[in-house]
Amino acid sequence: MKVGIFDSGIGGLSVVKSLLKHKLFKEIIYYGDTARVPYGAKDKNTIIRYSLEALEFFKNFDIDMIIIACNTVSAFAIYELKQACDIPVIGVIKPGVLAVKNNIKNKQESILVIATKGTINSSRYENELKKEKYLNVTSLQTGLFVSLVEEGIFEGEILNSTLDYYFKDLKESKKIHTVILACTHFPLLEKEISKYFDNCKTIHSGNAIVEFIKEKYNYTNTFKNSKISFFATENPDNLKKVAKLWLGSLIND
Amino acid sequence: MKVGIFDSGIGGLSVVKSLLKHKLFKEIIYYGDTARVPYGAKDKNTIIRYSLEALEFFKNFDIDMIIIACNTVSAFAIYELKQACDIPVIGVIKPGVLAVKNNIKNKQESILVIATKGTINSSRYENELKKEKYLNVTSLQTGLFVSLVEEGIFEGEILNSTLDYYFKDLKESKKIHTVILACTHFPLLEKEISKYFDNCKTIHSGNAIVEFIKEKYNYTNTFKNSKISFFATENPDNLKKVAKLWLGSLIND
Repeated sequence: MKVGIFDSGIGGLSVVKSLLKHKLFKEIIYYGDTARVPYGAKDKNTIIRYSLEALEFFKNFDIDMIIIACNTVSAFAIYELKQACDIPVIGVIKPGVLAVKNNIKNKQESILVIATKGTINSSRYENELKKEKYLNVTSLQTGLFVSLVEEGIFEGEILNSTLDYYFKDLKESKKIHTVILACTHFPLLEKEISKYFDNCKTIHSGNAIVEFIKEKYNYTNTFKNSKISFFATENPDNLKKVAKLWLGSLIND
Repeated sequence: MKVGIFDSGIGGLSVVKSLLKHKLFKEIIYYGDTARVPYGAKDKNTIIRYSLEALEFFKNFDIDMIIIACNTVSAFAIYELKQACDIPVIGVIKPGVLAVKNNIKNKQESILVIATKGTINSSRYENELKKEKYLNVTSLQTGLFVSLVEEGIFEGEILNSTLDYYFKDLKESKKIHTVILACTHFPLLEKEISKYFDNCKTIHSGNAIVEFIKEKYNYTNTFKNSKISFFATENPDNLKKVAKLWLGSLIND
């Protein structure tokens, strides 16, 4: 099985990491729109237009499934992508909600969704969680985390001030049991975010997608070696460099 | 005189502010590529391509001059823009260097250039300053400042940690006399940056451009009222909202 991964930039590599760890696919084609990243604060119509352009790119390959690693695209363009495509298109939101269902049995537990502006404003996570009767949900835009990750800041003073800036009032007002990391950059801050909320649970899009594909598509194949190719609308060398850094031995074997 | 202002997004409004204060033009057409912002980390070729597209946009208007408010575009595409255009095209770098010449008589004084990745990597400021015999120049990428400004953070803990993150070692090693704010977002942090370096001088692209146009083009017109129109590749309403906020009574009169 050959899968195409679409992301607005490099963040989707955190999803690729989960796919590679679970050896789910024979071949992975990664396509990042690095020339126009970030999508987090763009308009719905722009996001739909850019995402449909990505579909055109994937037509160069004979793929069996497309995974949308980007939360913003999943929030705004998943319907249009599914309409435009005759192979399965999987976003990160439904898998995230499935992971909540599989991991949080007590529906009163408090869930915090953190993401960039677009994803939060779409209310997609909140609405899907509401359908499943999780009603104790808080949503917060935490866009600065993206910039910190891109700057290579994963701990220290700036991160601590930023955690306080976004979360201090919330932490004082209620206990947070689970944080949904609803942006592909955030898993790189997973430890620090979890620690901030007294070692709360976290939901990570990459792991959620693996769970989702296994469960919903009854997909149990594994491959000893996965072939992976990287494409980008700009500076593919940088994408490959970051991939080596993030994925390490998973792609160097 | 009718001028076109091109910027990668909303940051160029800090340049517009200076133009309006000095009542330099009868009409201003502002065009921000908000759909593809930020340019700070994009490739040279991409920046040239996007900038030439902006020229196409300005062909809709009968303008007399184009000001490139964006430092990254000025650093990478000014030559191509001048070539493609038969009216004057003014970037921010030469004006910034002229402002240094006009304000810093002692060529031994230390100058710090802060900007996003592209502008710093281009070495344009350093090279131009070197030609003018300013040799005590340090350059630093400080991209997080853009995210802070866009988040509306102009003071407080995160900004203080970020100032320390970028500047602490430098401040301990030498006295900084002047900081060139080589990104249109940075004037919004001017006070705090100046304070950090013991109230050092700052060079601000907007004021530098006013000085430059007056001096190099021998331009002395002033207009009681300037008409200004805002255009954007995405979400022009947001651009107009920010313009109201930043420019206040300068556009509401």
